[in-house]
Amino acid sequence: MPLMRSWVDSANAPDCPFPLNNLPYGVFSTGEEEPRCGVAIGDKILDCGAAESVGLLNFGDEPLFDVPFWNEVMEQGPELWERLRNRLTGLLAEGSSSRPSVEPFLVEQAAATMHMPFLVSEYTDFYAGKHHATNVGTMFRGAENALPPNWLHIPIGYNGRASSVVVSGTDVRRPWGQLKGPNDDAPRFAPCARFDLELEMGAIVGKESDGPVTVNEADDMIFGYVLLNDWSARDIQAWEYQPLGPFQAKATATTVSPWIVTRAALEPFRCNTPAREKELLPHLRDNGPMLYDIDLAVTLAPEGKAASTVAETNYNVMYYSAAQQLAHHTTSGCPMNPGDLLGSGTISGPEKHQRGSLLELSWGGKEPVTLDTGESRTFLEDGDRLTLTGTARGDGFTLGFGECTGRLLPALKDPYAR
Amino acid sequence: MPLMRSWVDSANAPDCPFPLNNLPYGVFSTGEEEPRCGVAIGDKILDCGAAESVGLLNFGDEPLFDVPFWNEVMEQGPELWERLRNRLTGLLAEGSSSRPSVEPFLVEQAAATMHMPFLVSEYTDFYAGKHHATNVGTMFRGAENALPPNWLHIPIGYNGRASSVVVSGTDVRRPWGQLKGPNDDAPRFAPCARFDLELEMGAIVGKESDGPVTVNEADDMIFGYVLLNDWSARDIQAWEYQPLGPFQAKATATTVSPWIVTRAALEPFRCNTPAREKELLPHLRDNGPMLYDIDLAVTLAPEGKAASTVAETNYNVMYYSAAQQLAHHTTSGCPMNPGDLLGSGTISGPEKHQRGSLLELSWGGKEPVTLDTGESRTFLEDGDRLTLTGTARGDGFTLGFGECTGRLLPALKDPYAR
Repeated sequence: MPLMRSWVDSANAPDCPFPLNNLPYGVFSTGEEEPRCGVAIGDKILDCGAAESVGLLNFGDEPLFDVPFWNEVMEQGPELWERLRNRLTGLLAEGSSSRPSVEPFLVEQAAATMHMPFLVSEYTDFYAGKHHATNVGTMFRGAENALPPNWLHIPIGYNGRASSVVVSGTDVRRPWGQLKGPNDDAPRFAPCARFDLELEMGAIVGKESDGPVTVNEADDMIFGYVLLNDWSARDIQAWEYQPLGPFQAKATATTVSPWIVTRAALEPFRCNTPAREKELLPHLRDNGPMLYDIDLAVTLAPEGKAASTVAETNYNVMYYSAAQQLAHHTTSGCPMNPGDLLGSGTISGPEKHQRGSLLELSWGGKEPVTLDTGESRTFLEDGDRLTLTGTARGDGFTLGFGECTGRLLPALKDPYAR
Repeated sequence: MPLMRSWVDSANAPDCPFPLNNLPYGVFSTGEEEPRCGVAIGDKILDCGAAESVGLLNFGDEPLFDVPFWNEVMEQGPELWERLRNRLTGLLAEGSSSRPSVEPFLVEQAAATMHMPFLVSEYTDFYAGKHHATNVGTMFRGAENALPPNWLHIPIGYNGRASSVVVSGTDVRRPWGQLKGPNDDAPRFAPCARFDLELEMGAIVGKESDGPVTVNEADDMIFGYVLLNDWSARDIQAWEYQPLGPFQAKATATTVSPWIVTRAALEPFRCNTPAREKELLPHLRDNGPMLYDIDLAVTLAPEGKAASTVAETNYNVMYYSAAQQLAHHTTSGCPMNPGDLLGSGTISGPEKHQRGSLLELSWGGKEPVTLDTGESRTFLEDGDRLTLTGTARGDGFTLGFGECTGRLLPALKDPYAR
């Protein structure tokens, strides 16, 4: 599919992340106004709330865009998702007769503050990258036992904490936690010393389920995708995670990009999961290309210094698609709801520079990563800013998600001081 | 504290679960009416929504009780919780001059349908019963390695699935899942064959937090308690839970009792946690009695047959209080919200008949439990009805939670048939 041209000129540049092909959904505010729904086009945002109020975007009796989240649109279901995308495309396409009526509702992205684009109902994080699971398993259990026996049969996941999901730009405070090193006699309560990122994609469930769904049905339930950084306290995790999994290590913050790139926009970038090493059981089997070809990168900028690229990989290296993860999530009858967020798991490629966490990049802290500034990192240091980007490259156009960025603030001196 | 007498006669019987000392909060409906907030007193329910509409229960400009959940009351904070309890006590106490105006708003419990008493924001389940953890650990790892090394230092917990929490009376469908026995070559997708209960108490967080809280602050944040049955698919769990914890094994359903017994009502029943085998770090240390003396029982009734008591224990056997669990939950800065539900973990006493799961009662299926009907059980069979009860015994009165009951329906023949 080639570039779809818009009358918003900036949207037609080949490196613009928000051409007419994209139309991602966010929540923004300007000045003192209330946050509301908007769609990115070029370097502008179409104010959907305002456009709705004058009758340019109307789908039924109740307003959908005057609220600071896209959940109400999700709840209308896939038929409306398609009608909305068609309508927006019609309004913004080159030559559209609607231009004079739509133009007054364009806002400069540079002047807008972005907010969480949706209310997170529940958050599940997976462990579906084989290179990541193999790297971590090798470090902890040796190469012979790297992958757990279930890994090639089910997308391993655990429930995370929806309340800790924040939008790009939110500062993250280094947490305290209970720590015990392998040579310590007893645990202690101290600031995390091995704070890390996890480069992931997040899939947003748009449609409810009440019983097991097939992989195809699961794919149809996905509203869109965001970039996701699952901040991780490795030392807290090491002490707490046996036997019931990560808990406080993953509860400080998870950052998502401000724009939801819809499944419809990503259609041209669909690709297959890798060849199966063991055949999946029928209910999880691939049924068409359900991964996406999206280039991903992570930069790290020490406080007041330039950013260095520390990882470059692609979503297409994952072993399980979000559709397979969602299908597995429903096998027991677990009800899923609009706004549920599924983290893909850390996305690491086969090469060293393709690893999506400092745990892997520094091989458990043993091989420091050198930045362009000459500094090195094993884990994150106070003041570090991490930025994730994602780019799908089409024929003469690109699709982006906006930055997924966050700065690490130092731990509180006394977490209980009031 | 002795019985507080009410002008509702049935509330004064020494074995009535809902004396004036209790005043638990639920959501009910009668006939075709919308579900709304109510308070149990004797064999009646005070219709709070109706009482509010005529000015008998007013706390500010906005109505609080005309909705089918108690979250709005929680969000008002502990000062309002106390004013509400005082007001209800005044309205319903023996000799109250309000009797003529209140009496029209009493509804027969027998005529009411109970609904979920609150919107579950997020659900966390703990593993804080030492006898349970020791039993399970002994079965799986041997007596020498029964307790994980972290167990005596932190209340181990994992995030569960809020969407799967249902009110007492809801039927539960036996789930399908991926299973692999120790002697199987490969996993298969089949109905769970080892479906189980977990006898727990649920603590409901009523107040938000944004940063670590002390054990005392955590105790103040708790709005009330419910009985909780964390239905568990042991065979699904065995295959999936390494390395990131239980997932689909715990996502079919969690049943809670219909009445929230407030922390205020439970004050007279406070008791200490057991002696510490290892001193806790200061941020988790006990600071007064924060457990409760509540007798608990589980009955099992095969379809169409009489119920047998299969377990009797007490909440006072737990190693960690809900306040300690909540304090631990916030150590990393994890934001907590009104409506968050914390499962205590399975409550098993030291004796065999005090074990709160069939996994323990039948010792992993090796020692079938004999019912009064002559039948035996290792795990649950289709049609079985499980009922949890809880009773705090005061001086001439008792406090109850209402039944926490559910019936197991057979697995679907084909979970993907539409």
